Amino acid sequence: MKIIVIGAAGTIGQKIVAAIEDGHEIIKVGRKSGDLHADITDPGSLKELFEKAGKFDALVNASGDVAYSPFRELDDSHFDVGYKSKFLGQVHLVTLGKDQINDGGSITLTSGILSHEFVPFGSAGSAMNSAIETFAQAAACEIGRGIRINVVCPGLLEESAKAYGSYFPGHIPVSGSKVAQFYKRSIFGVETGKVFLAIR
Amino acid sequence: MKIIVIGAAGTIGQKIVAAIEDGHEIIKVGRKSGDLHADITDPGSLKELFEKAGKFDALVNASGDVAYSPFRELDDSHFDVGYKSKFLGQVHLVTLGKDQINDGGSITLTSGILSHEFVPFGSAGSAMNSAIETFAQAAACEIGRGIRINVVCPGLLEESAKAYGSYFPGHIPVSGSKVAQFYKRSIFGVETGKVFLAIR
Repeated sequence: MKIIVIGAAGTIGQKIVAAIEDGHEIIKVGRKSGDLHADITDPGSLKELFEKAGKFDALVNASGDVAYSPFRELDDSHFDVGYKSKFLGQVHLVTLGKDQINDGGSITLTSGILSHEFVPFGSAGSAMNSAIETFAQAAACEIGRGIRINVVCPGLLEESAKAYGSYFPGHIPVSGSKVAQFYKRSIFGVETGKVFLAIR
Repeated sequence: MKIIVIGAAGTIGQKIVAAIEDGHEIIKVGRKSGDLHADITDPGSLKELFEKAGKFDALVNASGDVAYSPFRELDDSHFDVGYKSKFLGQVHLVTLGKDQINDGGSITLTSGILSHEFVPFGSAGSAMNSAIETFAQAAACEIGRGIRINVVCPGLLEESAKAYGSYFPGHIPVSGSKVAQFYKRSIFGVETGKVFLAIR
């Protein structure tokens, strides 16, 4: 199977590659690293990526940002970060990727636990993580040609707990290796329109 | 109680006003009709609205748009309509309204059934309805001063079934009067951070 992994050098991306590379052709994509370069906030770079990559069987994205802000200081800029990256960036992976993906292929996107659980500073992230989860579920109904679309929603990662754990009081971290299993399930399974809560 | 109703002249807005006006001071707001004028897509008009209205006890919004498009023709413009209106427009009601609302007041926003059920042409609307529902739930945790925030998620309205029913195959319409009861529950009840599914 030919599988494109965007954000392959990231904390989750590396674990995904390790979990799926055996017996498959993996095209690792990063903004500045990997086999091919692309930035999900730049649709031109995605078009170029799909042209260079050619037909493929699975697309996995483990990149995308949201902004954190104290509630009283929220302004449009905080929402715009997530809208352009986590939301529209991943929407473009579906709308541009669908023309290059083989029949029966799969697209696996990434949200984050803020769509389901609320933490201080997190409301802009909550909104945009939720938006991409719901878009993916709707798109899975409409995309056709047997193409599946799922979203993995990772909890606080063990690997990130030192840096970000204070934003997630009481959250029990999950290992990147466990999270990677949900991507594997999406890529090689039969499910579609699912949000996999990768929190334990 | 002093209650601001935005979109008061609309199909749902009229039913809300009828359901809550007895014994309360209602400030009806519309783009071109009502006691005061505002457009949720124009933050300047909202600032002016809150200055003119003064302190209030409840804010209800029954306005906001999303765009419909065939899946294969989706582009950023379809998402942007909902992002600027249904999402950011209602976010601004929270971020600007919170400084004028009395302690213990309530803010009631509107999403739409596309956040939970998927129909042809609806994926951009699904995403932005979901985003505002999740933002409201997160914001309800953080807003403080006893202020409550809820979202009413109306199904296909009986009053709109003739015009829009073909987009919602198999959906059983709900009357605007029934939908209005969920707004009443949000305004005069004790619940917060809820999404009221007003579908029957």
